[in-house]
Amino acid sequence: MIDYRRLRIALLGAGSVGSQVARLLLEHRAELADRAGADLELVGIAVRDVNAPRDAKLPRELFTTDAAALIHGADIVIELMGGLEPARELILEAINSGADVVTGNKALLATSGPEIFESAEQVGASVYYEAAVAGAIPIIRPLRDSLAGDRVKRIMGIVNGTTNYILDRMDTEGADFDAVLADAQRLGYAEADPTGDVEGFDAAQKAAILASLAFHTTVPLESVHREGITTVTASMIEAARHAGFVIKLLAVAERMDTDGQESISVRVYPALVPREHPLASVHGANNAVFVEAEAAGPLMFYGAGAGGVQTASAVLGDVVSAARRHIAGGVGVGESTRANLPILPIGAVTTRYQITLEVTDQPGVLATVASILSDGGVSVATVEQTVVDGAGTARIVIGTHTAREEDLSSTVQRLSASDVVRAVSSVLRVEGE
Amino acid sequence: MIDYRRLRIALLGAGSVGSQVARLLLEHRAELADRAGADLELVGIAVRDVNAPRDAKLPRELFTTDAAALIHGADIVIELMGGLEPARELILEAINSGADVVTGNKALLATSGPEIFESAEQVGASVYYEAAVAGAIPIIRPLRDSLAGDRVKRIMGIVNGTTNYILDRMDTEGADFDAVLADAQRLGYAEADPTGDVEGFDAAQKAAILASLAFHTTVPLESVHREGITTVTASMIEAARHAGFVIKLLAVAERMDTDGQESISVRVYPALVPREHPLASVHGANNAVFVEAEAAGPLMFYGAGAGGVQTASAVLGDVVSAARRHIAGGVGVGESTRANLPILPIGAVTTRYQITLEVTDQPGVLATVASILSDGGVSVATVEQTVVDGAGTARIVIGTHTAREEDLSSTVQRLSASDVVRAVSSVLRVEGE
Repeated sequence: MIDYRRLRIALLGAGSVGSQVARLLLEHRAELADRAGADLELVGIAVRDVNAPRDAKLPRELFTTDAAALIHGADIVIELMGGLEPARELILEAINSGADVVTGNKALLATSGPEIFESAEQVGASVYYEAAVAGAIPIIRPLRDSLAGDRVKRIMGIVNGTTNYILDRMDTEGADFDAVLADAQRLGYAEADPTGDVEGFDAAQKAAILASLAFHTTVPLESVHREGITTVTASMIEAARHAGFVIKLLAVAERMDTDGQESISVRVYPALVPREHPLASVHGANNAVFVEAEAAGPLMFYGAGAGGVQTASAVLGDVVSAARRHIAGGVGVGESTRANLPILPIGAVTTRYQITLEVTDQPGVLATVASILSDGGVSVATVEQTVVDGAGTARIVIGTHTAREEDLSSTVQRLSASDVVRAVSSVLRVEGE
Repeated sequence: MIDYRRLRIALLGAGSVGSQVARLLLEHRAELADRAGADLELVGIAVRDVNAPRDAKLPRELFTTDAAALIHGADIVIELMGGLEPARELILEAINSGADVVTGNKALLATSGPEIFESAEQVGASVYYEAAVAGAIPIIRPLRDSLAGDRVKRIMGIVNGTTNYILDRMDTEGADFDAVLADAQRLGYAEADPTGDVEGFDAAQKAAILASLAFHTTVPLESVHREGITTVTASMIEAARHAGFVIKLLAVAERMDTDGQESISVRVYPALVPREHPLASVHGANNAVFVEAEAAGPLMFYGAGAGGVQTASAVLGDVVSAARRHIAGGVGVGESTRANLPILPIGAVTTRYQITLEVTDQPGVLATVASILSDGGVSVATVEQTVVDGAGTARIVIGTHTAREEDLSSTVQRLSASDVVRAVSSVLRVEGE
C-alpha cells in the first residue's frame, strides 16, 4: 500500500449527481488514490437539509449545512448544488482560498464563466467542468486539450436529452408533441415544468459553453439565438422523413468568414438533419457532439447526456485531474479567450432552409412564389408541389440554397402576405449537409 | 501581441504526418502561441534524406540528418519517424535531456512503452501519444483523464481503417476479399504489403495501448490474441447480414471476473456486430472506439483513423498540452500500471459464437450436432437449418450462449471430426450484444 498524500475534498450538493459522486469517492477510495496519486478524502457534504432523502446511502456525519466552513481548508471543491447563487459566491470563495474547483453548473458557467475563470487565473487555480455539458461524454477535455492545436470550424450538438427523447419518439411513433411530452413527464424524462428543456434554454447554456471553449471567445448567453421544439408538429416530422431528414434540436456553434472578417455564430433550434448523418442515429435521451475541425476533420462524441451516476463519472474524472495537478505542482491553465471573435446576430447567419407553404392550387402560383423568393435574394435548390385536398389547396416544399437568415426571414414575411399563399406551414434550417 | 516564452520544438520525421505537423506549426504559430501560452519554435526536422520529396512545402534550412544534435536543448521532441530503432533510443535520449515527448509510434509503444514511461517518470517528463491510436480521434486523453475516476468494463474499437474499408466494401458490394483488397491497394487505402493491416498486427498494437491505459496494466503485445480478416469470405458476410449482423475487425479489451479474480482479456478478430450497434454504422476507412464504463455507461468516439493532416491534429493537441505543462511548471503525470491485472489467454475468454456447418442432409444429424455441443459445454441459443443443394447437403447455423473459447474450440474440433459434418464453414464471435 502506497502512502499517498491526502487531499481534502469538499462536496457542495447531494442531489442525483452529488450523492453518486460521494458514494463513488467513498467506495472506490483505494482505486481512485492509485489513479490520482493522492488519497482523496471526502471531508464533508454541504446541503440545505441534512435530513433530506438521498439517492445513495451516505454516512450521516459527512453532512453539514455550513458550506462556507466546509470550503475552508479544502484542496478541491466540487460544486453540484446548481443555480446561480450561492453557487457563484461559494466557487469564488473556494478559488480565493486556494482550492481547485470542479463544477457541473452549466447555468452558472454560461452566465458567470468569465468572472470565475478570471478569478482562477489570478490565483493560479483550475476550474474543471466536464459534467456541465453532455453528462458523461468527454467533450470539454477534447475541445480544450486534444483539439488545442487544431481550428474548430463547426460544432453541432444534441446536448439536451429530454428534447431528443421527445423528438425521437415523435419520429418513430408519428405522435404529437403534447402527447409525447406528457408521457415523457410521466416516465421522468421531462420535468413537471419542461420549459428549460423544450424551449431550448438548457441547450443554449451548453452551446455558450462549447462555443466559448472551441473559439476561445467569451460567448454571453444573450448572444445565443434560441428556439425550442414546441412548434414542431407530427406533420413536420412526417414531411422531414419524406424528404430524407430527421428533426433534431441542435446546438450549433460555427466559425464564419464574412468579407474576410472572422466571426462566430451560436444558435439553438430544431433543424433538419440528413438521415445518413451520424447525428441522425442518436436515439432516446442520448447526447452527441459532432465537431468539424480543420485538420482533424469530422469527429463525433456520443453517450449518455444525463443521469446521476453517468454525470458523476465526468465529475470524478475532473477530480482526479485536479488531484494530479495538485500533486504535480504548477499553476493551473486558464481558459483562453484570446481570440475573442465577434459573434454574429442570427440575421447574419447563412444556412440552407426548407420552407413548406400551403397555396391556392391555381395557375401561376409557383411563378409568383418563385419570384418572391428570387426578389428576396433566396435561391431555390429544390421544389416539390403536391395537391393536398379537394378544396383547392396545394403544398409547395422549397429547399433553398444557402441564404442569409435576414433575407430568408423578410422573404418568408412577403410570402406570408402574398394572396396566393394560404399559410407558411414551416420554415426549418437544414444542418449537416 | 503578448511576449510569450519561447519553447524549442524538435521534429523527428517528415513523412505524411510529420510534414503536416511542421506546416501547421509554422503556419499557425501565432494562434498556437495563444492556445499554448508559449511561442512554439520549430527548431529543426531530422530526416534520413534532406532532399526527399515532402507532402508540404517546408523551409530547406530546417532539415538535418543529425537527430541526436537536434534533440539537444529541445523542450519538446515530436517523434514521427516510426519503427522501433532509432526511435526508441532517440526518445529515451530526449527524456533524459529533460524534454517532453510527443509520439505517434504505436509499434514502439506497444513493445517498449513500459521502458519509455518509466524513464519519463524518473525524470518527471511527460510522454503524449494521442496520435498512436485512431488518428485524429481523441481517445487517449478521454481514457487517461476523463474516465480516470470511473472503471472501464470493455473497449471495442474499430482501430484499423484499411480493414474497415475492405470489410465495408465487401458488405455493401457483396465482393470478395481479394478483389476489394486489390482495389484498396490501387486506391491507396491498403499498402503494397498489406500484412500489417489485414492480419491484425496494427490493430493488435493499438489494442495493447488502449488496454494498458484503460486497465492500468502492462499489456505486452504477445498477450494480445490476434486474428486477421483474410479468412472472411463474401458468403460469411452475406450470412451475417441475413442474421442481422455486420462483420467488423474489432480490438476488444475487457475486464473479466473469473471466480472472484479480476483479470483482463485483449483480443483482435473479425466479429459479428449487431446492425443496430453504433459500431455497425462506422463506414469506409473511419475508426471508432466504443467504451463501456461502470458509471458513464456506453460512450463512442468516432472520426478519421488515419491521414497525414488528421493525425497531425492529434500531434499538435499533444504539443500544446506539453507546452502548457512546461509553462505551468510541475512534474509530469506518469502512466499508472498500479492495477496490473492478470491477462487471460484467449482460451479462458467467454463470448457468444456463431458456428456455420455444412452437414449431410439425413435424419438424426441435428441430434448428433446438438449432443456434441452439449457434451462440450456449449449451450445453443438459436439454430437454423436450411437445405443447400440437391446433393444431400444442409447448412446449420448455430448461435451459442456465452461459452468459453477453449470449450468452443475443442467442440468445433469434435464437430469437424464427426461423420455427419462435411465442413465447418465458419466460427465467428459475436460482440456488442
